[in-house]
Amino acid sequence: MSQSMIWTRVDYEKDGKQNGWLQLPHSVTRSAYGNVSIPLTVIKNGKGPTAFLMAGNHGDEYEGQVALCKLIQALEPHHIQGRVIIIPAINLPAAMAGVRVSPIDQGNLNRSFPGDPNGTATYAIAHYIDTVLYPMADIHHDLHSGGSSLQYLPFASMRQSQDAALNARATSALKAFGAPIGLIWAYSPDSRLSSVAAVNRNLVALGGEFGGGGSVTSSGVRIVEQGLKNLLAHAGIIEASRAVGPYAGPSRLMEIKSRDYYVYAPEAGLFEPAVELGDMVRRGDVCGKVYFVDNPGRAPEPCYFEGDGMVICKRHFGRVERGDCVVHLATDVA
Amino acid sequence: MSQSMIWTRVDYEKDGKQNGWLQLPHSVTRSAYGNVSIPLTVIKNGKGPTAFLMAGNHGDEYEGQVALCKLIQALEPHHIQGRVIIIPAINLPAAMAGVRVSPIDQGNLNRSFPGDPNGTATYAIAHYIDTVLYPMADIHHDLHSGGSSLQYLPFASMRQSQDAALNARATSALKAFGAPIGLIWAYSPDSRLSSVAAVNRNLVALGGEFGGGGSVTSSGVRIVEQGLKNLLAHAGIIEASRAVGPYAGPSRLMEIKSRDYYVYAPEAGLFEPAVELGDMVRRGDVCGKVYFVDNPGRAPEPCYFEGDGMVICKRHFGRVERGDCVVHLATDVA
Amino acid sequence: MSQSMIWTRVDYEKDGKQNGWLQLPHSVTRSAYGNVSIPLTVIKNGKGPTAFLMAGNHGDEYEGQVALCKLIQALEPHHIQGRVIIIPAINLPAAMAGVRVSPIDQGNLNRSFPGDPNGTATYAIAHYIDTVLYPMADIHHDLHSGGSSLQYLPFASMRQSQDAALNARATSALKAFGAPIGLIWAYSPDSRLSSVAAVNRNLVALGGEFGGGGSVTSSGVRIVEQGLKNLLAHAGIIEASRAVGPYAGPSRLMEIKSRDYYVYAPEAGLFEPAVELGDMVRRGDVCGKVYFVDNPGRAPEPCYFEGDGMVICKRHFGRVERGDCVVHLATDVA
Amino acid sequence: MSQSMIWTRVDYEKDGKQNGWLQLPHSVTRSAYGNVSIPLTVIKNGKGPTAFLMAGNHGDEYEGQVALCKLIQALEPHHIQGRVIIIPAINLPAAMAGVRVSPIDQGNLNRSFPGDPNGTATYAIAHYIDTVLYPMADIHHDLHSGGSSLQYLPFASMRQSQDAALNARATSALKAFGAPIGLIWAYSPDSRLSSVAAVNRNLVALGGEFGGGGSVTSSGVRIVEQGLKNLLAHAGIIEASRAVGPYAGPSRLMEIKSRDYYVYAPEAGLFEPAVELGDMVRRGDVCGKVYFVDNPGRAPEPCYFEGDGMVICKRHFGRVERGDCVVHLATDVA
Amino acid sequence: MSQSMIWTRVDYEKDGKQNGWLQLPHSVTRSAYGNVSIPLTVIKNGKGPTAFLMAGNHGDEYEGQVALCKLIQALEPHHIQGRVIIIPAINLPAAMAGVRVSPIDQGNLNRSFPGDPNGTATYAIAHYIDTVLYPMADIHHDLHSGGSSLQYLPFASMRQSQDAALNARATSALKAFGAPIGLIWAYSPDSRLSSVAAVNRNLVALGGEFGGGGSVTSSGVRIVEQGLKNLLAHAGIIEASRAVGPYAGPSRLMEIKSRDYYVYAPEAGLFEPAVELGDMVRRGDVCGKVYFVDNPGRAPEPCYFEGDGMVICKRHFGRVERGDCVVHLATDVA
Amino acid sequence: MSQSMIWTRVDYEKDGKQNGWLQLPHSVTRSAYGNVSIPLTVIKNGKGPTAFLMAGNHGDEYEGQVALCKLIQALEPHHIQGRVIIIPAINLPAAMAGVRVSPIDQGNLNRSFPGDPNGTATYAIAHYIDTVLYPMADIHHDLHSGGSSLQYLPFASMRQSQDAALNARATSALKAFGAPIGLIWAYSPDSRLSSVAAVNRNLVALGGEFGGGGSVTSSGVRIVEQGLKNLLAHAGIIEASRAVGPYAGPSRLMEIKSRDYYVYAPEAGLFEPAVELGDMVRRGDVCGKVYFVDNPGRAPEPCYFEGDGMVICKRHFGRVERGDCVVHLATDVA
Repeated sequence: MSQSMIWTRVDYEKDGKQNGWLQLPHSVTRSAYGNVSIPLTVIKNGKGPTAFLMAGNHGDEYEGQVALCKLIQALEPHHIQGRVIIIPAINLPAAMAGVRVSPIDQGNLNRSFPGDPNGTATYAIAHYIDTVLYPMADIHHDLHSGGSSLQYLPFASMRQSQDAALNARATSALKAFGAPIGLIWAYSPDSRLSSVAAVNRNLVALGGEFGGGGSVTSSGVRIVEQGLKNLLAHAGIIEASRAVGPYAGPSRLMEIKSRDYYVYAPEAGLFEPAVELGDMVRRGDVCGKVYFVDNPGRAPEPCYFEGDGMVICKRHFGRVERGDCVVHLATDVA
Repeated sequence: MSQSMIWTRVDYEKDGKQNGWLQLPHSVTRSAYGNVSIPLTVIKNGKGPTAFLMAGNHGDEYEGQVALCKLIQALEPHHIQGRVIIIPAINLPAAMAGVRVSPIDQGNLNRSFPGDPNGTATYAIAHYIDTVLYPMADIHHDLHSGGSSLQYLPFASMRQSQDAALNARATSALKAFGAPIGLIWAYSPDSRLSSVAAVNRNLVALGGEFGGGGSVTSSGVRIVEQGLKNLLAHAGIIEASRAVGPYAGPSRLMEIKSRDYYVYAPEAGLFEPAVELGDMVRRGDVCGKVYFVDNPGRAPEPCYFEGDGMVICKRHFGRVERGDCVVHLATDVA
Repeated sequence: MSQSMIWTRVDYEKDGKQNGWLQLPHSVTRSAYGNVSIPLTVIKNGKGPTAFLMAGNHGDEYEGQVALCKLIQALEPHHIQGRVIIIPAINLPAAMAGVRVSPIDQGNLNRSFPGDPNGTATYAIAHYIDTVLYPMADIHHDLHSGGSSLQYLPFASMRQSQDAALNARATSALKAFGAPIGLIWAYSPDSRLSSVAAVNRNLVALGGEFGGGGSVTSSGVRIVEQGLKNLLAHAGIIEASRAVGPYAGPSRLMEIKSRDYYVYAPEAGLFEPAVELGDMVRRGDVCGKVYFVDNPGRAPEPCYFEGDGMVICKRHFGRVERGDCVVHLATDVA
Repeated sequence: MSQSMIWTRVDYEKDGKQNGWLQLPHSVTRSAYGNVSIPLTVIKNGKGPTAFLMAGNHGDEYEGQVALCKLIQALEPHHIQGRVIIIPAINLPAAMAGVRVSPIDQGNLNRSFPGDPNGTATYAIAHYIDTVLYPMADIHHDLHSGGSSLQYLPFASMRQSQDAALNARATSALKAFGAPIGLIWAYSPDSRLSSVAAVNRNLVALGGEFGGGGSVTSSGVRIVEQGLKNLLAHAGIIEASRAVGPYAGPSRLMEIKSRDYYVYAPEAGLFEPAVELGDMVRRGDVCGKVYFVDNPGRAPEPCYFEGDGMVICKRHFGRVERGDCVVHLATDVA
Repeated sequence: MSQSMIWTRVDYEKDGKQNGWLQLPHSVTRSAYGNVSIPLTVIKNGKGPTAFLMAGNHGDEYEGQVALCKLIQALEPHHIQGRVIIIPAINLPAAMAGVRVSPIDQGNLNRSFPGDPNGTATYAIAHYIDTVLYPMADIHHDLHSGGSSLQYLPFASMRQSQDAALNARATSALKAFGAPIGLIWAYSPDSRLSSVAAVNRNLVALGGEFGGGGSVTSSGVRIVEQGLKNLLAHAGIIEASRAVGPYAGPSRLMEIKSRDYYVYAPEAGLFEPAVELGDMVRRGDVCGKVYFVDNPGRAPEPCYFEGDGMVICKRHFGRVERGDCVVHLATDVA
Repeated sequence: MSQSMIWTRVDYEKDGKQNGWLQLPHSVTRSAYGNVSIPLTVIKNGKGPTAFLMAGNHGDEYEGQVALCKLIQALEPHHIQGRVIIIPAINLPAAMAGVRVSPIDQGNLNRSFPGDPNGTATYAIAHYIDTVLYPMADIHHDLHSGGSSLQYLPFASMRQSQDAALNARATSALKAFGAPIGLIWAYSPDSRLSSVAAVNRNLVALGGEFGGGGSVTSSGVRIVEQGLKNLLAHAGIIEASRAVGPYAGPSRLMEIKSRDYYVYAPEAGLFEPAVELGDMVRRGDVCGKVYFVDNPGRAPEPCYFEGDGMVICKRHFGRVERGDCVVHLATDVA
């Protein structure tokens, strides 16, 4: 397979702090020799581990984007030993448009790994991450939120792999991050995620959902800011004494284990949820009802939970199509 | 000026409960003799006052839409004396698309009064409300929320008119409704609103913002459901004994008095607010900062409050354009 | 009101045959000094009455467009006494796009009379017809079909006015045209039609629907071709001997008298009609059913006729939205 | 190649009647964890053959969609021995939009076989059909019509394969179905069709075109309804006595043998056909003419037949682009 | 007629230099309380005349936009006596999108005067200019270029009015500006232009076209920069000694007197011009030819000049639609 | 890999002159059996070499399109010995829309080689060129221009390959063509270009940029017309005596050797260049500045040259996004 056509004037091996751009050639009517310019900051000081921090995998997930912009303003080479690579808006076209998927190619970056250097813009970005950035990194955080359509109780997360030693290192990093909840994805039918690619590259790779609804949640930003300090200290890139400890006590470890943790809208219409984030529910409980504003004399259509657990995620938008996830649950790790 | 071309098979003068549609002729390629079918319920029992309740003036404001769907399911002629006209999705094309303005003509219904029978769909709806529905009504509630872009502390509201007697009757209705906050719009540079038209028609006309962000807030729905019972009892349409009292003690009366209650984004970018709904602020305080994810090395741009007061409204979306309202305040009525 | 900005190099007063264009200034990004060029043929030979024939009022109605193109190829000055003005595609942007309404401004020309010289393109065209072309004409035919969404039994038509003498002259022309059915619009809630404007200008003005479905129906084209010869002969513009007589015996005179002649879809979905064009039906008969392909377990929703009559029009498209006209009737003139 | 991510709560192995949905994960801005919900009915009673019936391969082809909705309403487990799998709208996004190709990815499902589980929605559907549904089935009918752009004389059809035994079984099924015409596709340059994939899976696979123009033709629906009963009886799934026999005598067997059966528009414009469905024509006959409504003084441009045969298909829309098929022929099997 | 809803925090009466914004309320889904923020600079020093300079009337005309940005950077209160109001991008949405007309409402600002405070954004801007800015000004320059579709020999211009004294003052200002050509619009069928409104307000109002093609022409920018200095000196706002004199000798005075100065494309296709800017031509000369790349065997279609004169304007884009202006002429003032 | 589905009634082996079309099957809602009809002219006279000339690889590059249309009108079989295949608008959908990339699939043909017969339209075209047309040809010219976004000093060009003999033959052809500049692409990170595919097929393959800005430059058309005569004579297809010699003396040989020849916009805004085509510049010189018309008080942002050379290409459009190429250089071959 051919090499990435993405290029940059940033030198990953140079000490100091560089603010620059990844240039992704994008030849269109308005610019024959144009580039999508994805901002990139590299801060390096001598030898040491490399942390690769990114946000904006989905363009409408903002807590990580804000926290990384603030980190770029604040972090200096003399604060660290090793290297920190920061990309606050990795799917830049989506981030600038405030949408999940790229307006260039409708690409969902987190369904595009391991990417393709000759594919559309989103595939080319995934390929660069997988072939250039992941091989440079020791530790990785891909900061997500619920995006426009979902609201989450904030959590940091990891994905379980087949490699027990890697799982142990990731769990240790997850606890160090110190979010209120530490979530383990023990079920996932999709292999096109950044986290799958990172684990395949043997990275200690964290994720997390720190808010949602297409909004900037101040508490979510604070959880990320504190967690990143903890994580960099845990990795030995900043001094251990600069760690600030968990946001609110030790992380509550939870997991998602099957499709039955999810409830989907049974019809298109306007959904009124019957539960709030944090509620404990049981299989068979009413999850909510779909109302028909074009025909309000029609009886509303209810939907029900398929399993027991805590409501960790709710749909944000009032309008639903059949098949939209309206709520999903998590359960405590036994 | 000519008459409305909107027609209906519902008979406003017939006793009983009728679920039907306003038919707005809309002749387009996909339907030469098509209609926009706006659902309408009329419940009538003998003589008595008429309450006209509507939601979906902006399509992405849902608490009123849900509450009116539930009222249509629950309210029967024998419960009332007089007439209740309910339209849960008055700008139906916008409500079905989940957006503020009509996808048919980009019309903002609440900037289209007193309307035009030969204008585009949104103007034709405004004209029908103003010339057919308002003259039938004694009391009116146009139920709003913040919509996709704004989050509100929930309140019921009224608009101050030149007619002191009408103001007194409206204030009395506002208190009866019993929302946590009762807001008086003492400043408004725009005369194209439903509330202006309603006051011109001498109606006791309430409004209110019961949530926002394009979501369905359960507590907002409850405030509306309780308030509507209170209001119908106050109007003598249902028995006084069916009033349920204020949602949380007597309404706190607040007002908005000038443009200085509003803060606007100073630049395009990603906005991190420095305040939360309910915070008390002072002129000169930092309201928030705009970050630049395409160029994170650029210093963020702050904005400041222009007056003192309580944060009653925040922008929901993280992304801003210059000139977007990011926060507005209210102050207690002296 | 100001004058039309539409101009042409065709001279309406010159003898001979001129093929030219109406030029409607249309200043947009792709052409600062551009024009919508609407083709126009004027054939004149000495003194005599003026017939103004047009098609393409709705862009997706083709039988008249084809017949007028053929007439332009065939008709020469020496065939006539007087003047024939032919515009085969009056709403040219719609006709070129094959849609009912103008892609420029979404304008439905036949809902835009009497027009506006400073309005959007469609209003400017209506204004030119009403203030320049109608005053030149003695007799007018605006050739329609069902368009993309409707299928018609072919008929010529006239609109009843308050002026009995004009009605008599129009009825006489309608019979001369010789379509299988001669339809009288005795009910119409809309005053923005070309036929209303033409009657207001005291023109003998015919209409008609000669096919539909966005297709070119050969028999419809033939009815128009023969009818136009009959009409020009009736008007004395071509020799009486060139009339070819009715298409299929004397026209059956029918009329449309109220809203109850129409049936509208009760729900959105896929509509299976229970009747064919030409069927005689009675109030209460099943007109068809709406099926739900996204949820086929849901029972289909029927609709019923509101009056007695013959099915003269059916919806063409299978998909319906609530409020679409699915069938309408006509009844014989008593 | 990886497995399909499409999932369902329907159990293909369970006796009884289940109405459910195939859930195709589709993660977009309006729904991060959304699904395209494609309805699916499985009716099973003990052991026996499996018939897989589908429509909506192209969204704007409706006769099969209606007939399958009616079959879902009518068919019960006790009517059958074996299994019937029914999907009335397999490319649901296209069917709901009333268009040929999916509005999600512009995918033409019948040009997407054998599909791709990681591709866009349309490719993922093709892959699921090919890898999950086809292997379960013994007999298959993919019900088409002409769609928005073509009108057909109704026929059932089969595709010739290299396997004579399979051809014989398919011919037998074709005759049993009993449509007025039984067409054999003996020429086809495209291998991306459902019928090619079905034959590759060794299925007795029928197709057919039962109407067109984007309309619901009542006679076409009846041909399909009767034919499906005949086919299920032929397969031994319903009792032989429930077969209703051919729609109008034994099927006339016809075929399409080369590119010369097709005529294409020679220019863009408005096409008036010179022939009707069912006409017999000869090479060199005029097929129709293209008229220029933007320039009606320009001579119309004719096109001619390239072979002899019967007109079995005509373009429905009046407007053509150069290269559009305007007519195609079939000839009797010798 | 009601007042403008446009507001600003800039104080037109305050001495000093203020960079601020006109805020045009624009309430849409993405921002319920949003504003279009049009930048505005006011520089004032004591008493004296007011010059109102604007560009970006059409968004894709750039020489004036660049020159006014540079003037805003350079001009300080102590340089002037009186007041200079500068708006470099008056139709801001169009200027930011790089198109002629506003993407908000497709409005062509220079076809929207005298505007409407309750109309769409473009009409509201025109109304503000006409009712607020024009009454404040003594002298006005609205800086245009050819925009995306036209290339011009650069000129300054004025519009002839009925008021001889005003004409004389404008001619004097035109000469003072000192562009290579000074053009007098002696023919214009449109009354919706800024220049018409300005003359109606009795302003000394200049225009001009300083380049085109959607490009920034360096020489055009220089002509504007020098001309504005000359103009401000001529008005007595800056010292006479700061005038820099004409760009290239005294302006050559030319005029446009009738529709025959213009040539329009006779067909749609690819246009090869036969002339260059500055060429002298005669009625009947070939102006260019339209080629047909979709059918290159068809003979190209020529067009011809309708009058004598100098080529002052050429279409920039290669592709044409029938009716596009491809060239226009000017002639020397006798 | 499967064969192309593109077909044609043109016979490549037949003597004489044929104007026909490549038919690319394109099955969409508006035409189920439609084709993209790409015009093709084949002129053949006995044995001899084959020249394959094409333009419209990018739809908005016109000089080659015009020149090839003129060549098709002028060139006859008796003028040649061998064969000339001419396609003036190879990416026809883009050429008809006047844009760089295909409106059908957003495909950039010159980033799509070697293509895919089952891919979208643009990939299918690339595949046909590579597998059908290139193998027939001895010599090839793919005529480009700067397109909408770039302006070039006109040049012919070749791409350096690993094969010295092929390079020598190409250089000889380049000199024979006789453009003012002969450019050698010695640097290119992209392998998806037609020129790469042509070289892989061992063709003597020229390119070139003969104008730009989306305009038709008369001198560029002349350079191409003369050069093609020279080239056909050089190849022995027309008589050597019909060569017309270089356009303006021997070609100046220049080259592009690294990324440092290019300058990219450092910010989004309005770009004023500081240089003109043909200027000699040095590393560190100011290339131009970005102005901010939405915020003109903000200081403009400059950019600088990264190397020495001559300005051979400038961005045409005034508006830029960060990452757009604004200027690139060439240097003389040593």
